Amino acid sequence: MRVAILAHEQFPDRAKTALGVLRYADHDVVGVLDRENAGEDVADFVTDVQDAPIYEGMAALEADAVDALLIGIAPIGGGFEDSWREDVRTALEYGCDVISGLHYFLSEDEEFVRLADENGCELRDVRKPPADLTVAEGVAGEVDAEIILTVGTDCSVGKMTTTMELADAARDAGHDAAVVPTGQTGIVIEGWGNPIDRVVSDFTAGAVEEMILEKGDDHDYLFVEGQGSIVHPAYSAVTCGILHGSMPDRLVLCHDAGREAIHGYESFDLPALKTYIDLYEGLSAPVSDGEVVAGALNTTGLKDDDAAREAVDEYADAIGAPATDVIRFDAADVLEALVGEPGV
Amino acid sequence: MRVAILAHEQFPDRAKTALGVLRYADHDVVGVLDRENAGEDVADFVTDVQDAPIYEGMAALEADAVDALLIGIAPIGGGFEDSWREDVRTALEYGCDVISGLHYFLSEDEEFVRLADENGCELRDVRKPPADLTVAEGVAGEVDAEIILTVGTDCSVGKMTTTMELADAARDAGHDAAVVPTGQTGIVIEGWGNPIDRVVSDFTAGAVEEMILEKGDDHDYLFVEGQGSIVHPAYSAVTCGILHGSMPDRLVLCHDAGREAIHGYESFDLPALKTYIDLYEGLSAPVSDGEVVAGALNTTGLKDDDAAREAVDEYADAIGAPATDVIRFDAADVLEALVGEPGV
Repeated sequence: MRVAILAHEQFPDRAKTALGVLRYADHDVVGVLDRENAGEDVADFVTDVQDAPIYEGMAALEADAVDALLIGIAPIGGGFEDSWREDVRTALEYGCDVISGLHYFLSEDEEFVRLADENGCELRDVRKPPADLTVAEGVAGEVDAEIILTVGTDCSVGKMTTTMELADAARDAGHDAAVVPTGQTGIVIEGWGNPIDRVVSDFTAGAVEEMILEKGDDHDYLFVEGQGSIVHPAYSAVTCGILHGSMPDRLVLCHDAGREAIHGYESFDLPALKTYIDLYEGLSAPVSDGEVVAGALNTTGLKDDDAAREAVDEYADAIGAPATDVIRFDAADVLEALVGEPGV
Repeated sequence: MRVAILAHEQFPDRAKTALGVLRYADHDVVGVLDRENAGEDVADFVTDVQDAPIYEGMAALEADAVDALLIGIAPIGGGFEDSWREDVRTALEYGCDVISGLHYFLSEDEEFVRLADENGCELRDVRKPPADLTVAEGVAGEVDAEIILTVGTDCSVGKMTTTMELADAARDAGHDAAVVPTGQTGIVIEGWGNPIDRVVSDFTAGAVEEMILEKGDDHDYLFVEGQGSIVHPAYSAVTCGILHGSMPDRLVLCHDAGREAIHGYESFDLPALKTYIDLYEGLSAPVSDGEVVAGALNTTGLKDDDAAREAVDEYADAIGAPATDVIRFDAADVLEALVGEPGV
């Protein structure tokens, strides 16, 4: 599938979905839409993902060059910004499907529904949860697979990336590992999954449990994508539901080097790393005894490799477990802590 | 408003909504529907609430004797049991409104919609959240009122009852106190409120914050109704969202005397009371520094007053704070810990 990715004014640093798709999905990305960086290329900003030209808008692409437009950014609240409307309109007029992970459902927007209908294309809201979800039964721990969950000190610290990279590394080492996606980017990349932040709050754990039960007897390891942080003023409910719904055996604590306050909620300082470990393990203990056995530090903000290496070492010391930057360095020690010796 | 309350086979012990309405709401309860106890009276089971006869079903009441049928029970999962259908059907044929706090929306049931339409009556799903909810901004702490939140060791330990009783006691002592309801029973009693367990999980904290902002500058104390428990395998997400969305100053730890395992999830033991305090305070600290300053013990299961008194004293010792059974004993010490000296 040839996709264009909308990421206006937020590429690359605040375009989590766009970057995730560029890095992990099988899609052929034919362009990124970013009116701030039109004329440049993805490779001018990020080098370890597939390259693509950056365009002003959808109209700059030929109609027959693209199969789908993907909304690659998600503002706080998940609303649709009206400055994106022209791009979606053009995509639909081109006959492209539009794939969105926003809280705002394109499939309930009157104009988009009409245009999709007229042009025979599809509006796919991946954040629209299935109708048959229900409360957890507390049985995720009964599956054969070992459950490994990424947990974080904040939003946007690299939980999705860590999940994808560690699952890849485990597979490279000969293990049978799968990813359990819980957010829009992960779902777009993996092609399945429940959008946990969009389910009825009573069903939060249940929507995770349902995925664990679906895959848990087919693999040796499930890497569950965590969300938010357990002390986030807005999103902790989702984090807590994933922690109890997935009933993890092992936790990977993800952190962004240098982050000191909650992103977008800067009046709230991040507590000490030790506090996070106590809270995640303390909350997990009565349900599944998950322990923080590894760490993932996002060192994107550090230009120098030596400084990044030092930050990772300090982080490992602080959490008392092996750590790495899954993008910048190798994951061998972390992987050993999570899945043991290489498989066959 | 004259209401009949449906509570088949679960009255009184598992009919939380029915009991809450009998105890706190202004409605005139003309009958309880319970096919197991038909012919008896509410007062044969519970003495400190308004009395009403118990009937086999809706057909046993006269059509002109009742204005509304209220679903007074909520099974795990919040489904509609088909054995209740005849009662709802009869109520609608009588021209009664039907009020429900189930996850299953009566207003989306084809037969009920048709009958309501034919008979000019209303289907009111109080668990249907408003459409304009969004993510929390982390500002509940800025209101004038002191925020007091009930938290629990499990579901169905008395958080709603404790909230109602303590708010009443505070008002009796001359304070300006209001209740912030978060569940179906509280919403039915108070006549307003967001059904937190039914909102989109990303909006859990936001839906609580919105209520705090609405009432927080009009009162000196807000008593926020807690839900679930922070270590519940299915419902902890809701608990966590309320804890961070309400940004409480003080917490009241509610527990059911003798409860040792999670209700309905008996393979999970309740952790020690001290563990709950550590988890609730530890999770609250980075956001609002809420502290457990009082306890509420539900001693319904203890026949003897002396045994109940002893259990309350032991509970107070265990949590290191004044405690009471808000139904059985007075709340003076607990109230002083929460709101200080009597107001004016």
